[in-house]
Amino acid sequence: MMVDWIAVDWGTTNLRAFAMQGAAVVAQAMSDEGMGRLDRDGFEPALLRLIAPWLTEGKVTDVVACGMVGSRQGWHEAPYRAVPCAPLDPGSLVAAPTRDGRIRVRLVPGLKQAQPADVMRGEETQIAGTLSLLPGFDGVICLPGTHSKWAHLSAGEVVSFQTFMTGEMFALLSQASVLRHGMQGEGWEDAAFDAGVADALARPERIGAKLFGIRAEGLISGLSVAAARARLSGLLIGMELAAARPYWLGQAVVIVGSEGISGSYARALKTLGVEARLVTGGDAVLAGLAATRAKVNA
Amino acid sequence: MMVDWIAVDWGTTNLRAFAMQGAAVVAQAMSDEGMGRLDRDGFEPALLRLIAPWLTEGKVTDVVACGMVGSRQGWHEAPYRAVPCAPLDPGSLVAAPTRDGRIRVRLVPGLKQAQPADVMRGEETQIAGTLSLLPGFDGVICLPGTHSKWAHLSAGEVVSFQTFMTGEMFALLSQASVLRHGMQGEGWEDAAFDAGVADALARPERIGAKLFGIRAEGLISGLSVAAARARLSGLLIGMELAAARPYWLGQAVVIVGSEGISGSYARALKTLGVEARLVTGGDAVLAGLAATRAKVNA
Repeated sequence: MMVDWIAVDWGTTNLRAFAMQGAAVVAQAMSDEGMGRLDRDGFEPALLRLIAPWLTEGKVTDVVACGMVGSRQGWHEAPYRAVPCAPLDPGSLVAAPTRDGRIRVRLVPGLKQAQPADVMRGEETQIAGTLSLLPGFDGVICLPGTHSKWAHLSAGEVVSFQTFMTGEMFALLSQASVLRHGMQGEGWEDAAFDAGVADALARPERIGAKLFGIRAEGLISGLSVAAARARLSGLLIGMELAAARPYWLGQAVVIVGSEGISGSYARALKTLGVEARLVTGGDAVLAGLAATRAKVNA
Repeated sequence: MMVDWIAVDWGTTNLRAFAMQGAAVVAQAMSDEGMGRLDRDGFEPALLRLIAPWLTEGKVTDVVACGMVGSRQGWHEAPYRAVPCAPLDPGSLVAAPTRDGRIRVRLVPGLKQAQPADVMRGEETQIAGTLSLLPGFDGVICLPGTHSKWAHLSAGEVVSFQTFMTGEMFALLSQASVLRHGMQGEGWEDAAFDAGVADALARPERIGAKLFGIRAEGLISGLSVAAARARLSGLLIGMELAAARPYWLGQAVVIVGSEGISGSYARALKTLGVEARLVTGGDAVLAGLAATRAKVNA
């Protein structure tokens, strides 16, 4: 197997590696050795456990990695670049120290914004990939997730961005708060999701009250698990959309993420008259890493 | 020691018992055997471990208990009463089954509201106690806590109420979310609290964005732990006040709770032109249980 270079998406919880020929994936591997489980000396061995079969003795293979691997708690810090700027700058890649002579590892830096204070790490690569997949795109990219991001793109630059804790709030509230009592199980009700979105958008200041209402309805009128989960998701996404209005209003919107969550965001945006295009998160990160690699070698 | 009756405040995490003569406390005891740690058969033994020294062989001592002990997961269910109604109704006390002949245990039911769906259990006793401490009070009672309550009182009845998950959200976000990284330690900055309150009240729909800003400022401009904790508290209390506006606007407000959290709410309300009176939560629950006991015996 001829491996040209290796693309790595290394977040807090997962490590994904791709053996590449140009922009094509020829093999891939994944482990749960995310940044959160590793100390500084653990990164190179964790990577080698995945990619060793792709390496050739006597040859140096380039590795380009994005995500939390470049944070202060990661393998080596790749300092944030300040917006407005292009999402990727090949000249700003930071070399990670290695012992194994068969690899040369470079880390993609994240982006920061001074006012309002914000940071991203990993999403800049997805944004670059989206620009590579949709050349000339101007508008807004929404990246739903644990920490959802909205980024305003113009002339190939990230002009501004904003992070929302929507995914983490859903996880905490549904698994660790009093609401968990009515959320054990499966199921989903679109109507409850839609009502949650509409409710949060109409009266966003009442979110704190609406949340406990899910528990109270479970106790006194038997709200189903499916309706409770969908309403919680709708309320939180609706609140995010209320705050992100300056981003999506009158803009071309692309949602970058996994199918399920992107579909929920698209559904909610549609009620606001916004027809979003969808790009798969995995495609975006690979396209971003490939674009970076291509520019480094250009 | 002459013990007339025993007052019990039994929540999810703590059990507090008071040996009473009329409305006066002659002894007290506390344990961490809250409802959350007990199964149905565990309640009577847990209570006896605390109150046995106050019991007399051959005599039946009355016990009046409020809080989660009366929930479906408690000792015995005391079904919710529907508002509008007086916070306490001696005729609605529910007897708990006991094996020990020295005690007769009665549980105070909570309150429910059909629309918007809401429930309380324990706070109804604090509200009754507040009315007993402030006879003739008409207005609004705010009970900050894990699940803050706002109740509208008129002519001795709870007309409506609303629960907010403010305290639980603070605990989850400061201890279990990404924000915890900037919140390990002590300290408090009043100015950061005030700014959080003002921010949330001015733009409540932006709370989801403001929260991650705490983390981002910690990363890129070194926000202190004291400022981060106080700002998070201010944002969450400000969001609660934004939603509770119909409760406090133009009303006489009494805050019932522990000194620290009540002080924060009073400070925030003062910026809105509301001068709240403070009642200690412990005083309120004891006064409520004593008022109940007095009416049962009348």
